[in-house]
Amino acid sequence: MGGDFAPDKILEGAILAQKELPDSDRIVLIGPEEVIREKLTQMGSDVSLFDIVHASEVIGMGEQPTKAFTQKPNSSITKGFKLLKKGLIDSFASAGNTGAMLVGSIYSVNVVQGIIRPATTSVLPKVNGGVGVLIDVGTNPDSKPDVLYQFGLLGSIYAQHVYGIENPKVGLLSIGEEEEKGNLLCQSAFRLMKGTPDYNFIGNIESRDLFNDKADVIVCDGFTGNIVLKQAEAMYRLIKKKGISDPFFDRMNYENYGGTPILGINSTVVIGHGISNGTAIKNMLKLSKEVHEAGVSEKIAQAISQYTHSKIFNEKSTDTPQDQ
Amino acid sequence: MGGDFAPDKILEGAILAQKELPDSDRIVLIGPEEVIREKLTQMGSDVSLFDIVHASEVIGMGEQPTKAFTQKPNSSITKGFKLLKKGLIDSFASAGNTGAMLVGSIYSVNVVQGIIRPATTSVLPKVNGGVGVLIDVGTNPDSKPDVLYQFGLLGSIYAQHVYGIENPKVGLLSIGEEEEKGNLLCQSAFRLMKGTPDYNFIGNIESRDLFNDKADVIVCDGFTGNIVLKQAEAMYRLIKKKGISDPFFDRMNYENYGGTPILGINSTVVIGHGISNGTAIKNMLKLSKEVHEAGVSEKIAQAISQYTHSKIFNEKSTDTPQDQ
Repeated sequence: MGGDFAPDKILEGAILAQKELPDSDRIVLIGPEEVIREKLTQMGSDVSLFDIVHASEVIGMGEQPTKAFTQKPNSSITKGFKLLKKGLIDSFASAGNTGAMLVGSIYSVNVVQGIIRPATTSVLPKVNGGVGVLIDVGTNPDSKPDVLYQFGLLGSIYAQHVYGIENPKVGLLSIGEEEEKGNLLCQSAFRLMKGTPDYNFIGNIESRDLFNDKADVIVCDGFTGNIVLKQAEAMYRLIKKKGISDPFFDRMNYENYGGTPILGINSTVVIGHGISNGTAIKNMLKLSKEVHEAGVSEKIAQAISQYTHSKIFNEKSTDTPQDQ
Repeated sequence: MGGDFAPDKILEGAILAQKELPDSDRIVLIGPEEVIREKLTQMGSDVSLFDIVHASEVIGMGEQPTKAFTQKPNSSITKGFKLLKKGLIDSFASAGNTGAMLVGSIYSVNVVQGIIRPATTSVLPKVNGGVGVLIDVGTNPDSKPDVLYQFGLLGSIYAQHVYGIENPKVGLLSIGEEEEKGNLLCQSAFRLMKGTPDYNFIGNIESRDLFNDKADVIVCDGFTGNIVLKQAEAMYRLIKKKGISDPFFDRMNYENYGGTPILGINSTVVIGHGISNGTAIKNMLKLSKEVHEAGVSEKIAQAISQYTHSKIFNEKSTDTPQDQ
């Protein structure tokens, strides 16, 4: 029931995904059973191809996430997290209330031990092919330097295991290339990242480098990442509106990427765009499978247990310098 | 001598501007006199059309601004500010060291009384014509809520008197439209701006609205503004590289806007892009004339002496809420 065009576009996407996924994969639809059965039949689909878990309630887009999550045990989001926690499903994806998806991720399947804050991520296409991983894209509008440090690790693991980028180049998004450029947050994060053995930190990058090969992982606070992402989306829409068709700009279409996984939690959760159409939902489902099969959560847990964070933090100051 | 292509492109721009400006306007070239004379002659221009003020030193792009400004009294930037302070020139524009231009603005011509921090601004084209004023674009990477509040006023006066936008709609750039969305800085700034009689505050806008009619003035900290601006520039360059020509995207060309004025100081100063070519320099000179003739500094001084800032600040908290 998530997203602006539920349940029609959600089911359309599920039907598309079911056709493309191997028979060993099973899509579990969580929502009002009668509606799902009726719609699937209307769409000419075989209901038996799906598992259906009845959920009588819906968490609306405007509802307060924590309250809704706890007070609506029969909502599709709450039920999804119950199934995920029990291991009855391998991944959970929804285009519904983002906040409720986060609350479920943090309080139901829990944050990986050692991770300060889970992060959401999205990808930006590169002019020469491939993608860059942008982390965080909105979950942490106010991030501390040590949180940005961890984003480098999360993004690095994600880029490597889901997009097959070996030894991903991790850049810190700032407003100048030199170490002393940027806001106080960036300056502090740079000092933590500099020379880290945990990932391949290449220094600051500027937003003019978002679409080139300079960095594979672009680290920023969630406020900045969300601004970048929505500006790229706006530009893509303007280009389409002008009737311009170009392979690179077409790759900016969010539908192709399916959604933003939440990294740093003990399971696989993908949040879809509220305006998702059938293609976007299909790709959201396929992405959730890829993230699960790549073992991203497990790899993050393993990396965080071994990484040198504590060592670095003892040697360098973790404090943000005093603001003027 | 400022910018990556000085002195050739600077002089090329000056020649272009001189042709377009009325005879009553006089362009003063500040730099090594011999070089200027020689180059102008080479370019087939009449040296007598310009005033030349000899400056034997240059502040390099990588130099520490304050140090360079004080230790190089014969640099073109230092000399320019001396002329500006004495009223021998009406406006000063340079594509040189941005930091040194700021230092000169703050310590030579001084900040308008009541202004907490001067700001740099740039314009973004709107799909339906016209422009939006983005403020700040890099001068204040870490801004406090009361500084953002003033940016609303500075941007509003600039949009009205230079771009002729009556009662400009001032939006706060955030990552959601609701008051409680965004980072702590935005949330605090929103509370200060809400209901202000000083300008027409319309609430939060998102980066997807940068190019539409939602807001005429877009307020943000300098870190965010710089990220937005350079991303827009990157997108423009990609579009050009693809050979796409479109009236809207062509209006994203920084050359057309000439530079970013520093608002909130007691004179007119415009900073040009380091990569400025002749057209950009021409437009930088024309913009500096427009900003001067619109009396932007005086109008800001007048507005700040009357505005309700202090009243609002007594009623509402000025503190950023504690970070988590």
